[in-house]
Amino acid sequence: MTQRIHGVLSPVVTPFKSDLSPDKERFIAHCKWLLSQDCGLAVFGTNSEANSLAAEERTMLLDALVAAGVDASRMMPGTGCCSLTETVKLTSQAVKHGCAGVLMLPPFYYKGVSEEGLYRHFSEVVQRVGDSRLKIYLYHIPPVAVVGITPGLVERLLKAYPQQIAGMKDSSGDWNNTKTFLDAFAKQGFDIFPGSESFLLAGLQNGGAGCISATANVNPAAIAKLCVEWKNADAAEQQKKLDITRDAFGKKYLMIGALKQGIAIYANDPAWAKVRPPLVELTAEQAKSLETELKAIGFTMPGINKGAAVAA
Amino acid sequence: MTQRIHGVLSPVVTPFKSDLSPDKERFIAHCKWLLSQDCGLAVFGTNSEANSLAAEERTMLLDALVAAGVDASRMMPGTGCCSLTETVKLTSQAVKHGCAGVLMLPPFYYKGVSEEGLYRHFSEVVQRVGDSRLKIYLYHIPPVAVVGITPGLVERLLKAYPQQIAGMKDSSGDWNNTKTFLDAFAKQGFDIFPGSESFLLAGLQNGGAGCISATANVNPAAIAKLCVEWKNADAAEQQKKLDITRDAFGKKYLMIGALKQGIAIYANDPAWAKVRPPLVELTAEQAKSLETELKAIGFTMPGINKGAAVAA
Repeated sequence: MTQRIHGVLSPVVTPFKSDLSPDKERFIAHCKWLLSQDCGLAVFGTNSEANSLAAEERTMLLDALVAAGVDASRMMPGTGCCSLTETVKLTSQAVKHGCAGVLMLPPFYYKGVSEEGLYRHFSEVVQRVGDSRLKIYLYHIPPVAVVGITPGLVERLLKAYPQQIAGMKDSSGDWNNTKTFLDAFAKQGFDIFPGSESFLLAGLQNGGAGCISATANVNPAAIAKLCVEWKNADAAEQQKKLDITRDAFGKKYLMIGALKQGIAIYANDPAWAKVRPPLVELTAEQAKSLETELKAIGFTMPGINKGAAVAA
Repeated sequence: MTQRIHGVLSPVVTPFKSDLSPDKERFIAHCKWLLSQDCGLAVFGTNSEANSLAAEERTMLLDALVAAGVDASRMMPGTGCCSLTETVKLTSQAVKHGCAGVLMLPPFYYKGVSEEGLYRHFSEVVQRVGDSRLKIYLYHIPPVAVVGITPGLVERLLKAYPQQIAGMKDSSGDWNNTKTFLDAFAKQGFDIFPGSESFLLAGLQNGGAGCISATANVNPAAIAKLCVEWKNADAAEQQKKLDITRDAFGKKYLMIGALKQGIAIYANDPAWAKVRPPLVELTAEQAKSLETELKAIGFTMPGINKGAAVAA
């Protein structure tokens, strides 16, 4: 069995140009910076505004990353769409590029769908992709997708496709839920990534595989550090510091807008603040208040690509 | 001003082949039958499993309908996707084909988005399509999309784009909500279609434009009749009969599966029963029970295309 991807991954925020098209150059530069901070690339996640991108925009961006020499074995692109056909297409592309895995939302338009229906969907995807390299990480994010991943579904899928069903991301924000999955499946080699670094230490102590977290876009090195040093004496102290930084971004603002504003500030690159509708960027007042708060907690982004360098 | 589309429209169910690809021939045949029953074509709605189709599958099916001579002025295709780019692409195609309008979901992945964000989304769509023929019908279906259309949003959009914002479909299932929109906007020529024929009579009595209803896939003529005869003495009686048929399909079963099963029965064409995951077709027992119930209420589908004829 090949080595599975573990550790900290960032749902990479997607920069947009003034015409709202994806900004390939800034995206590649940000991905390279994240890798330099020991952070893997869960491109096309919720925080990436991936569902505000057309399937072909995701395809273009993934091709561009690979063409730019970004290591596919450090990537777990989001490929779960509402339609089976698009999910299969994006997943196949990721597998062909040699990505470590794919992070797969359930089809999320129809609500209250049965476990049988979801099983059929994922089963069809595995069979249609038809590649032994495929590693699926199921994406549970009920506050957004509403449609979720249940233990019963994981059990059925693991039984049918033990090689392809590699793990999950749990963005329920509910530690009890994460713990339930860890207790039930971690020992079988099913890799569980909490969807926030708030649960990084607790997750690792209970057999978790790392975390895939929004804030890893701006604070990757510190999160990756705890992921390595979680047995150290100061682990709880490290966790506490991570939580303070996370709160600075996510407690008062829409997380996606705040992350982009944070990059805009620390990269001295206002273009980064742009989001696609239906999201709205931080107001000038919020941006100012975020900056003040980040400075107050001594937040830094060492080595972040400066706007001018990217634009040049 | 050109004549706006009014009356009864069907969110046309999409037939699938055994490999789950869209069945173009059966789709065209069903659309032609619906037109013959005085029913317009809201193809690519919720009941069409449109969000289980890739954007390019919708494009292919719309092109095929037009190529088959189906009148675009009787069509209101669903074009609202999570991404601005796909929404613009599908909408532009519909406008170029001369469709009467488009039924547009709000971007539905991100929840709790602001009215400002939704305004920006629809505003971008209008500007990017940039065609004076564009007529948008906003699609409010909170039980499924979760993200909804508010009176405040309609007011802002109508003010900015009085020619392009033509109306809405209200699938809230809440008459009070429909009434609120009718009272606020119907007199300005904003056409409101309840999302169920259960509210057809009440809607018409309060300035509604007709209805766009799942059951119009199987019971189009009777619904269209009430839409014409709503001032007749027997209107309430007609409404009652429509409700009985609707209940037979939608009360005990998942509506989409039941509609397709109904067509399979009356067209003597079992292939029609197929749905795409994450939906699941009716069980054999449910199918039998549906058939019994439909016969008990004397339900018929006059002139429905028989399976053999389509396959030939």
